[in-house]
Parts: sequence; structure tokens; C-alpha cells
Amino acid sequence: MIDKKPYILVTNDDGIHAPGINSLVLAMREIGEVVVVAPDTEKSAVGHAITLSDPLRVKKIDKNGVWQGFAVSGTPADCVKIAVNAILDRKPDLVVSGINLGSNTGINVIYSGTVSAATEGTILGIPSFAMSLTTYSNPIFSAASDFAKVIAGKILKNGLPEKTLLNVNVPNVEPEKIAGIKITRQGMARFAEQFDKRIDPQNRVYYWMGGSKADIIEDDDVDDKAVMKNLISVTPIQYDLTNYSFLETLKTWIPKDVNDESFK
Amino acid sequence: MIDKKPYILVTNDDGIHAPGINSLVLAMREIGEVVVVAPDTEKSAVGHAITLSDPLRVKKIDKNGVWQGFAVSGTPADCVKIAVNAILDRKPDLVVSGINLGSNTGINVIYSGTVSAATEGTILGIPSFAMSLTTYSNPIFSAASDFAKVIAGKILKNGLPEKTLLNVNVPNVEPEKIAGIKITRQGMARFAEQFDKRIDPQNRVYYWMGGSKADIIEDDDVDDKAVMKNLISVTPIQYDLTNYSFLETLKTWIPKDVNDESFK
Repeated sequence: MIDKKPYILVTNDDGIHAPGINSLVLAMREIGEVVVVAPDTEKSAVGHAITLSDPLRVKKIDKNGVWQGFAVSGTPADCVKIAVNAILDRKPDLVVSGINLGSNTGINVIYSGTVSAATEGTILGIPSFAMSLTTYSNPIFSAASDFAKVIAGKILKNGLPEKTLLNVNVPNVEPEKIAGIKITRQGMARFAEQFDKRIDPQNRVYYWMGGSKADIIEDDDVDDKAVMKNLISVTPIQYDLTNYSFLETLKTWIPKDVNDESFK
Repeated sequence: MIDKKPYILVTNDDGIHAPGINSLVLAMREIGEVVVVAPDTEKSAVGHAITLSDPLRVKKIDKNGVWQGFAVSGTPADCVKIAVNAILDRKPDLVVSGINLGSNTGINVIYSGTVSAATEGTILGIPSFAMSLTTYSNPIFSAASDFAKVIAGKILKNGLPEKTLLNVNVPNVEPEKIAGIKITRQGMARFAEQFDKRIDPQNRVYYWMGGSKADIIEDDDVDDKAVMKNLISVTPIQYDLTNYSFLETLKTWIPKDVNDESFK
């Protein structure tokens, strides 16, 4: 498929010691030369955060002689930025982020550190994708790591459109239970948050954020629906947030002139 | 314009003690009943982060008897979530985030805590907008706080389309120097990062992220270009990241069947 061995940057948001990144590294090594630059600790729900106010530390890590990598004291987006700009000696051919524990579907995509790392790769001009598994416990990585090789091959062969990355979510079942692959759009299902109000041992109030995903009453072509049916969900996403369809209407209700009558 | 006094939630990412939120609160008080729920410290470049792994603390703050508010030990998105779900006794009519020091234009929009707070308001079904000033020093808030009243009035009157918020950037000049208002799209200008490698007093390497905005070679209708011309930039943004135009092509290169020949 590819003559030259592709150079693949692997990162995640669960941290360099998470089991998901280990599975991903082993899978990517089968198809390319892998370098790992990942957060030194778990960075879940950091969204597209970058670290400007603190220094970043980079530490070489050896994973029992099986692979080596760089642990960074920052977010997933920091990892991709520092990898490309300061750690690696050449630009990678591909950025792969994951395998995350917990799906990154629906509204959750905008809070996702896993997706933000792949977004950062795309911003830097490198084809990128994010891999998540729809579970927080008892992960079965084999379908996800197998499919990561497939999708990596497809991307290396076909490329991706400008400013576009792939967000892949894999059901947590044995490979033979995977029902197929579905190209999906991002759903708009959101968490119904609940804040649990508690009292600490010093008698002070604190809150924990919790909640559950609101009922999904969406079409079959959204990410959440696909994984519920044991389909691997592949969503092409991009980071131009402009609502183009509203631009012209907005022009009609906001005059160009700050001294317009309608502003009084 | 509005008969009933609107109930307005004000937040930011520079923290409840920042000068920008003070200007915004005073402006919003002229048109509505204001409640302030904002981070207890600066949370710049936190992106759309939410706090799941730590408890959130909420502290009542009195700003010299002029206004009161709630300081939250979390991100801007946390503030909006906890305000609506646990602090306020009724749903606000409007969420306003800012006035941020530093523009939130181009690629930077995806790293912006200021914008994420307004996004969160929108997710919760509340019309929302973000206000940023294009400077980090010597801020001139008057044009921004005047325009915040205008835009708030327009939104309260017209509403906003589903899943859409407004991202407003104001040039840091005296009001009479503002050249007008421009409805814009999000630019794709990105920072050209540089990592400054340094040695700490214990002889360990650390990095600071820095850099400068790459040259803007974009159309006149992007946010960055507008503010450069002393125009107030108003961009309608949304959080469905799906690249719809690529969906069909992607279907042609990823088969539905995991056992497809092309996967071997």
C-alpha cells in the first residue's frame, strides 16, 4: 500500500501509561515507524486546552523495553505541538490519538482531549484521526486496534481534505461482534448534568459534576446511534465553527454603522 | 425593546477579578438583572474543558459593594454548567462571556475559554455571546461594553438559530475610532508556535510555548482581517463539527463491511 514506512505520531489523553495507547502503539508499529508523545498523566475532558502559563516538561519513558516514548506535563494538544515543533526531527506522516476509554460522540466531541490532539495534528498539516472505545471498564481493544491499522492505511493512501480529521468510535465488543462500519455525523446528544452537593470534613460545601447522557432521539446516521448498534462510527470533523447559513440573516439585523439608528 | 427585565448570566475566562468582566457587568446591568458566575482565577487557553475529576468550590464574592458574584474553582464551561444547574433558581435569558483580554479569532477560537462559556450556554438552550478585546494591555473597554448592550438587545429581540452563538471581537481603540461592524467568518490563521528550551536552577530542561500569529493571507471577510481594520467583528459560530461535504466521499473509501477485501 505504502512503499516508504510511514512515520506515525501516537498520542492520547488518558496518559502515556494507559492501556489504550499501548494497544495503539503495537498496532501502528505493524504498519510504520512510531513515535509516542503523550501526557504524563490522565487529561480527560481537557477539551482543546493548551498550556501557556506553565512550563512544559518532557521525560523519556521506557515501557518495559517494548517501546519508548516522551511523557509531557501538558495536554494532548500540547503534546502534538511540542512533538512536531521541538521533539521530532521530521514531520510525521500521520497523527493518531487514543485508544481512549470512553466514547467521544455527540456534544462530548467538543470536550474531548483525544479529538483535540488529532485536531492539532490537522492544524499542523498532518493527516490525523482519533480512536475511542465505548467503555470505561473491561476494555476489549482488538477491534479498535485492528481498525486503526485499516483507517491509517486508508488515510495514508487517500489523504484527507484540508482541515478535516476523522473521529472514530468503536463499540467495546469482541471483533466478531462488530456489525460493520458506518460513516456518521456528530450527534447533538448532550449530557444532562447533575451537580451533587456535598459537605467536606471541614464543613465546607463542594460539588461534583455528574449526570447521564440524555435520551438520544436522533437519526440513525449519528455517531451515538451507530455505536449503540455495534457499528464502528467514523465521523469526518473540521474546526471551522462558522455557521455559514446564518451569516446573511445576521447581516440584516446588525447594521454596519455603529451610529445606526437601530442601536439607540 | 424588552418589557420584562432580562435575566443575564455573565461569566468569563480571565477570572471574576479581571477588569473586563467588571465592565461587562456594569453594561449588562443597564439592560437587565445580572448574575455573575465566573472562575476564581484566570483560565486562559483552557478551551472547552470541564472538570470531572475534582470537586468544584463556589464562593460568594463582593466587588466593593458594587456587585456580587459567585467565584467557581473551575473552567468557564464549568461556571455556566454549575450556574444553570445548581446556583441559579431560574434559567437565564442570556449568557454573556467576557470581556476577554486578547482576541478570540481564527484558529484560536477553538482554544478559547471565553467562547466555550458561550458555547455551553447555547448547549443549555440559552442565547449566548462572547466578547473579546484585541489587546493584552492598556484595555479600552468602552466600545466593547457599549456594543455588548447593542448585541444583547438584538439577541433578546431576535433570538439566535439553534446551536448558534455569536463570537464578538472588538478593536482596542476609543469608540470614535471604531470603523464599523462586520459580520465575519472564522479565519483559519494559526499561531506559528515556537518552543523556547530552557534550563531550570536544578539543571533540568523545560519548555515555554510561544510564537506569533502567522501572516494572514485570507479574505477580507474573516474575523482577523476585520479587527485589523478597526471593525467590530461578529462571527456566528456553532458546534456541529461534522464536515458534511466530505461525508459522501468518505463512504466511497471506507466499506461498510469489516470483512471487506480492501481491509486485508
